[in-house]
Order: sequence, then C-alpha cells, then structure tokens
Amino acid sequence: MPDHAISPTRAEDYPEWYQQVVKAADLAEQSPVRGCMVIKPHGYAIWERMQTILDRMFKATGHQNAYFPLFIPLSYLEQEAKHVEGFAKECAVVTHHRLELGPDGKLIPTGKLEEPLVVRPTSETIIGAMYAKWIQSWRDLPMLINQWANVVRWEMRPRVFLRTSEFLWQEGHTAHATSEEAVEETLRMLDVYATFAERDLAMPVVKGPKTAAERFPGAVDTYSIEAMMQDGKALQAGTSHFLGQNFARGQNIKFASTSGAEEFCWTTSWGVSTRLVGAVIMTHSDDDGLVLPPRIAPHQIVLLPIHRTDEEKAAVMEACRKLEAELSAATFGGEPIRAKIDARDMRGGDKVWQHIKQGVPVRVEIGPRDLAAGAGSMTRRDRGPKERVAVPLAEFASRAPTLLEEIQQGLFERAKAFRAERTVRLDSAADVHVFFGAGEGPGEGSARGGFAHVHVADDPAVAAAFDPLKVTVRCVPMEGNDEPGTCVVTGKPVPRRSVLARSY
Amino acid sequence: MPDHAISPTRAEDYPEWYQQVVKAADLAEQSPVRGCMVIKPHGYAIWERMQTILDRMFKATGHQNAYFPLFIPLSYLEQEAKHVEGFAKECAVVTHHRLELGPDGKLIPTGKLEEPLVVRPTSETIIGAMYAKWIQSWRDLPMLINQWANVVRWEMRPRVFLRTSEFLWQEGHTAHATSEEAVEETLRMLDVYATFAERDLAMPVVKGPKTAAERFPGAVDTYSIEAMMQDGKALQAGTSHFLGQNFARGQNIKFASTSGAEEFCWTTSWGVSTRLVGAVIMTHSDDDGLVLPPRIAPHQIVLLPIHRTDEEKAAVMEACRKLEAELSAATFGGEPIRAKIDARDMRGGDKVWQHIKQGVPVRVEIGPRDLAAGAGSMTRRDRGPKERVAVPLAEFASRAPTLLEEIQQGLFERAKAFRAERTVRLDSAADVHVFFGAGEGPGEGSARGGFAHVHVADDPAVAAAFDPLKVTVRCVPMEGNDEPGTCVVTGKPVPRRSVLARSY
Repeated sequence: MPDHAISPTRAEDYPEWYQQVVKAADLAEQSPVRGCMVIKPHGYAIWERMQTILDRMFKATGHQNAYFPLFIPLSYLEQEAKHVEGFAKECAVVTHHRLELGPDGKLIPTGKLEEPLVVRPTSETIIGAMYAKWIQSWRDLPMLINQWANVVRWEMRPRVFLRTSEFLWQEGHTAHATSEEAVEETLRMLDVYATFAERDLAMPVVKGPKTAAERFPGAVDTYSIEAMMQDGKALQAGTSHFLGQNFARGQNIKFASTSGAEEFCWTTSWGVSTRLVGAVIMTHSDDDGLVLPPRIAPHQIVLLPIHRTDEEKAAVMEACRKLEAELSAATFGGEPIRAKIDARDMRGGDKVWQHIKQGVPVRVEIGPRDLAAGAGSMTRRDRGPKERVAVPLAEFASRAPTLLEEIQQGLFERAKAFRAERTVRLDSAADVHVFFGAGEGPGEGSARGGFAHVHVADDPAVAAAFDPLKVTVRCVPMEGNDEPGTCVVTGKPVPRRSVLARSY
Repeated sequence: MPDHAISPTRAEDYPEWYQQVVKAADLAEQSPVRGCMVIKPHGYAIWERMQTILDRMFKATGHQNAYFPLFIPLSYLEQEAKHVEGFAKECAVVTHHRLELGPDGKLIPTGKLEEPLVVRPTSETIIGAMYAKWIQSWRDLPMLINQWANVVRWEMRPRVFLRTSEFLWQEGHTAHATSEEAVEETLRMLDVYATFAERDLAMPVVKGPKTAAERFPGAVDTYSIEAMMQDGKALQAGTSHFLGQNFARGQNIKFASTSGAEEFCWTTSWGVSTRLVGAVIMTHSDDDGLVLPPRIAPHQIVLLPIHRTDEEKAAVMEACRKLEAELSAATFGGEPIRAKIDARDMRGGDKVWQHIKQGVPVRVEIGPRDLAAGAGSMTRRDRGPKERVAVPLAEFASRAPTLLEEIQQGLFERAKAFRAERTVRLDSAADVHVFFGAGEGPGEGSARGGFAHVHVADDPAVAAAFDPLKVTVRCVPMEGNDEPGTCVVTGKPVPRRSVLARSY
C-alpha cells in the first residue's frame, strides 16, 4: 500500500489530486453529456446537508420558496442589454418541441418554436416579469423569495462541482421599497453565507464588494465571500447582488408608495451552488482523501463491528446497536447525531479505508476484546489513520457532541492558520509580481500561492496590470481593513486594501 | 358577499372552479412560457411538505438520492424504440449552446450542437447508462436510487398542476439481481405511494396493475394508484413500473451473478409529481376554496389576534405568542405542530377569508373578551365558516394533536364516502354506456360520474369499445377484488373486475 490513499498528492499535482479525491470518495463523475456531471449519492447527501441548513437560515430571515420556469423566452434576455453581455454567451437554446422517428430509426427534431427558449442561466428576467405582475403597492413589499433549481451555463472547460454546464443552486430574489432596505438585504444574505461557510463548512471566508470588472452583469454592487483553497487560489463561494433599480426599470417592477406615487422597486439577488461541495473538498481534504466537517457530514460517526464467531457477532452487534441508538438520541448542531453501523461483509482494512476516503469524521471499531474492556477503538479523520484512542463505550454518546465540536472547530482553525500563512500585505506592483510571479513564486497548479492584501483602485488599469499574472481583485474586505493608502498601479488614494489572488 | 367565496361553484363549472380555487389560494399561475407554471410560495410549501414526508419514506426503505443530467443525448432515446414511441413525441430539444447579439439588438442562437440534446421527459435512459458503468457484480445490487428533479413534456392543453410542460417530480430507479426482487420493489413503492396518499393526503386510492394500453412505454407491468376527484373522474396519482430486463438489455446493464455468470439486471422505476398538489385540491376543496389535510398543510393552525387599544394589543399578542410556543412544542404526525400568528394590519374579515381560501385547517381568534374568559374562538376549515367553538386557551395546545387527527381522519372518511357513493358494479357493456353516457349520466365537466367496477379483459377491443365514452380502464384493483367473471366486451373469462372511469 502506498504512503497515501490518493495519488498524486496535493504537492505533486493539485488539480489531479482533486479529481482523484472526488473519485475515491464516490462523490460525482462526468456524465455522457458534455460538461454535465452526475452527482452520486455521497456527493448529493453533502449537498442535501447544505440545503437543509441554508433553507432553515433563509426561512428564519423571512424568505419563502417558490418555483419559476426552467425556460426563458429569448426576448426577455434582449430587454436586459448589460445582463445579456455577461450571460447570453453560453446558454442552452431550445428551438424545437417535438421529435419524429425517421425511416432509418433516427430521431428528427420537429415542431420549431416561434420564439426560441433559453434554459435559465439565472432567473432575474423571468422572476422579474412575475414580480411586475405581483407587486402593486408598498403593502406587497418586501417580496422575499428563494428558489432551489438547476441552471445551465455552457462550459468549455468543465471541472466537476467547480464548473459544470448544469449545476444545482439556490437563487434568492427580493424586491424592496427603498434603496436602504435592499442594501440591508444584500448584506444580510452575505452574512448568512459567511456564517454558513465558517460555522457549518468550517471554511474561513473574506467578505466584501467586488470591483466593477467582477460585478454581476446589471448589478450596482456585487458582494462575495472568498475562500482560500489549499493551492492558495481563491474560490468565490457565494455572491449577493444589490441590483439597484436596474432590473426593475428593465422589467417595469413598480409600486405605489405610501404617498401614492408610482416608483420603481429596488431589487437584490443572491446565490450559492453545488460549487460549495468542491470548495469543501479543496479546503479540508488531505492526501488520504475527503475530510468532512461534522456539521455537513452525511454520517458523522461510523461504527465498525469486528467478530469471527457467531457468538462474538451477536454480542458485538448488540453493543453497536445500543451505541447507535444512544448517539441518535444525542444532538450536535441542533440535530440528532448521525451514526451508522457498517456491518458489510468485506475485508476490515478495505472498509476502514473506504470511510477514510469518504471523509467520515469519526470511526469506532468494536470487537470482542474491546467489549470485554468496555471500550471501543476510536480514530478521527482529522488526525492520522493510526492515531487510535480507546473510548469507554458507556460514556461515548454523552461525550460525542463535544468530540464533534472539537473536530469542527479544529478544521476551522486549521484552515484559518493555513490562510494566515499564505496571506501577505504588499505595497508595490513589483512586490505583487514577485509574489505571484511564475518564476519565483507559485504558478498555476502549485501548492503555494495565496492572498495579497494590496491598495488598488477600482480601475480597469489595475485589472490590466495583473492580467498577465492571471491574478484578479477578489473583493475589498469589509472587516478589519481600515488602512488608507494609494493604488499601487494608478497612484489614486483608496480607503482600504483589496484581496488579490488567482482564482477558480 | 356571495354565498361562496369561489365562483363558479363545483356544481356550476367544475374545471373553472378548480382554476379559481388555485387562484384564490395563491398556489400557482401560468407563466409567460407556454405550458409552464409558476409555483407560488403557498403552492410550493405544500409540495415541500409532500417532499419531506416522501423523502423520509424513501430513505426508510433503503433508497439514496442522487442527481443526473437534465439533458439526454438524442441517440440514447433512439436505443429504446418502444420508449420513444411513448415519450419522444413532445420533448424540448436543445440544438444550440450559444447566443450572439445581432446588430438589431436581437439575440441569435449559434454554436450548433453536433448531436441535439433532449430535456429529460423521464430519466430511464441516462440513469441506465450510468448503471451500466456502476454495476459489475451481484455485490453492487440492489441499486436503489431516487432523484428529485424537473422534467419537461410539451403540453398542448396545459392545466395548472395537472398537466404542465415542465413539472417537478421524483423518479426512483432501481436495479436488482432477480425478477422477484424487482417485482417486490415495484409493489413496495406502490404501497409507499398508497400509504402516503391515504395517511398524509387523506385521499383514498385504488391500487393495481394497468392494462397493456395504459402501460409505461417499455415496461412489463405498470401499477398505479387512482384517486376519485369530486367530478367523479379518476386521477392517476402515482405509478410504479416493473421494467423486467427490457431497459437493461437496451442499455447493457449486466452483472456477474454469484455463480459468475453474466446476467442482465431487472429494473424498476416509480414516480409522483406536482400533479399531487392538483389531486389534493380536487379531492378536498369546497366552494369556499382550498381545504388542506393537516399533515400537508404548511400551517395547521393560525392564531388571529383581535384588539383596538394598545393595551388590548399587548395582552392579546402575549397570549398568542404563548399559545404559539405551546403549539410548536406539541407534536402531530411525528413533527412539531405548525402554528403561526397572523398580526397583519388589515380588515379582520378579509384576513379570515384569506385563511379560508388558503385552506388552513384551524383558525383561533383571540380578543380581549376571549382573554378575560380564558378562551379563544375556534373555527375549522372542514366545517362551515360560521361554526364557532369556544376553546379553553390553557388546554388548547394539549388538545391540538387530537383535533388535527380528527380533521385529518374526517377528510379521509368524507372522501371515502364520496367515492363509495359514486362507485358501482356493472355487468354489461350496455350498463357501462348508460352509466357514462352523456345523455343520461354525467358528461365531461359534470359533478357526477364515478368508478365502474366491471369485468373486462386486457384487450384492445375493450379500449375501443369504451373510447367513444372517453372512458378507460384505470387499473385492476389488487384488494378486495376476487370475483371472477367474463369480459363484458369480449366474453373472455377474467379473474377480477377492473375500474373504468373518465380520467385526468
């Protein structure tokens, strides 16, 4: 057996390591349809955990779910010129609504549509059309709706979870009576995403507004949360857009104010996607495979019975079932602990390594000798696979919540320390070039790289200056960042530093 | 105010009554995209209730969720000749993957695909292609996967929830080593659907196999649950298909058996859709609007504070909040009771009628006088709007589970009685013609009609005989139906009666 379950390692070839972790954990795979993935049960179960937690947070902040059509008439996109520039390039277009079987057994598309339909790349235009009908007066505001859906953006260079032609996401769309309320909503949902990323995914994020070049097409302001992957690259993990009155004007979303005057609404939109699964994989996993934070692990604790004789089996299985029941009665993160017994008839070593590669946070082996000693043999996914601890079975369930919390916090602290080590403050364009320069620093696919906090203006000259490095301005951090300075490219004064990085 | 909140009434114009109930309850509406509906928050919340309960039942029977691509290559459908005949007629076909902005501001589809893609009308072919890769040996079986997804079947005559070009559903797809296991799975999931329909939707169903003419294209056997709507028509509320080895052969889904021999798998598929929302509406609602069984009502109890002065308001709101908390701590159907306070500033009558039209099972009004008496004024949606009962506030929460169970059971019993009244046994083709004849019996859109239990053979002559009446064989009931006889059309001996009805 090699030193590590995943080959190549992160240091050897990070992009290929990622593909191999996905494969070894049985999360997803490419489908026969170009750019579209199949999300396998273990990968989908992680997404379901994310959905459950986020959905609860959306509802707690007053949002309701609804569902809008998959298809958008071409003319709706034409109404939104700026939006089209950004999105209309790579869309799936439906042109026919019927198939006929030809004499050679081939199917022929027939029933040509009068107006082609676009498979939604995002739903601002179709939802806006409905809001224009539904909103009459200030009494109808705020309109706070979220949709869980699939969207399609044709990808030429797909990567599983990170960039796929079809992906699953949620998109919130809200309408408000005032600019202030809409900005407040935009920032509230940014905070929801940041809390979710840090508390549940154990993934530290930097949150802040984007520069004009990185803004959502048609938005006044786009805010994002940016996480650092283990190759030092940034991954945009969620966005929240203040759309001003831009979409409301384009789609005629008006309301009668309390004074009776007719005004355009102020709208927002915000979303996260199955990309978050990729973010979690790349934040925590190691050279043995997936590492999952307990809060989003489909199973947090796996119990592995060990036995030879039927008599041993009966005793061990009884102990396992008792422990499983006790664990299910305990809670962690406000939910019952998710424990399962893996009693499959297969080689013990293979079974253990499967759970390691799938990222189960805690494994407890229980055999006849353990039973005699009233103890199980525990291993933690966040520690080395040989680091065994004897745990008293009678007390294990009552201690499990603390154990899971310790693992959850430990992963978060580790990720924060990793980010801190790879974050620098730079004060000249030359230093930025050195830090990101392919010759002297980390290049594409390197395990180094990082975040550079730099004073830069929101100016096309900045984007142009760093474009050869494939480095972009990720966002302007909103917290702990009050140091004014002058732009290292344009010399303009700027109130705070921005984060520069290569990105996914 | 008219006698009833919904106009026309069921007796006056049943199809139009249905549309008006949907509108008055704010469940859904037509979108600008032909045949596609927008599911509004109240309608979607009902679907979420259905999803939550069904998902729990699927997982309890060993299934896992996964996600497969929206698009199916045209060639996949060509492989399944019989399947194509049934489904390929009305599909959305994607032919281009890019849009370009023309000089006149119009968008032009470009980037023609080498092979057109079909938006999934159902996923047997794409899931089968993955199963062929995933399944190697008997150790990989059974494969038990479910998908929650949107599907598209172009509809020329759409009706909200009942028949829409895009709809939401779940589709289970399983593969087994033996025919027996696959048949067992098919029937197990039919039972899951029947239990869900009767226990949760309070909707009595007849379950049984379909005749050849009504079978899923490519299936060996299709089983359905059939419910009776208030116009006497049948609504197919769920189907479970035993696919034999038909799809496995077409898609090469093979496994090495315990003896080492290579064999084709035996597969099943089963699904229910947002059509169930339409079924619930038409089963229980009345001329005042929607009536929801408590188990699937997004809110089961609404508390309506009544007050004039600020002092009254403080006391009444405090009592409401206390009761809401007590109700949320009580359970019904294994879940916390879903109660909410409606403190919106609007006319009390309008507010009450909104809850009536939206189908909230229980309303409790609490005003200063009620408070002084320690009681609230309760009205039930399943009784007349003026039938008020004083309920002691101190005991209401502890009595609520029994109250909700009584309402749930009452709706089920009422629906069963309705069906029993409109179900007949007929022993000649002439009687069938009289029962369904437009001249003497109920016609299209009538509030009469019903189920006729008749001895008929599974024979095209039977379908042909009743086609002029727009009557079809819905299924052959599996329970309480052991009376042999001879087919009223062909004279062939048959072991049991079938259910004939008009249908949605």
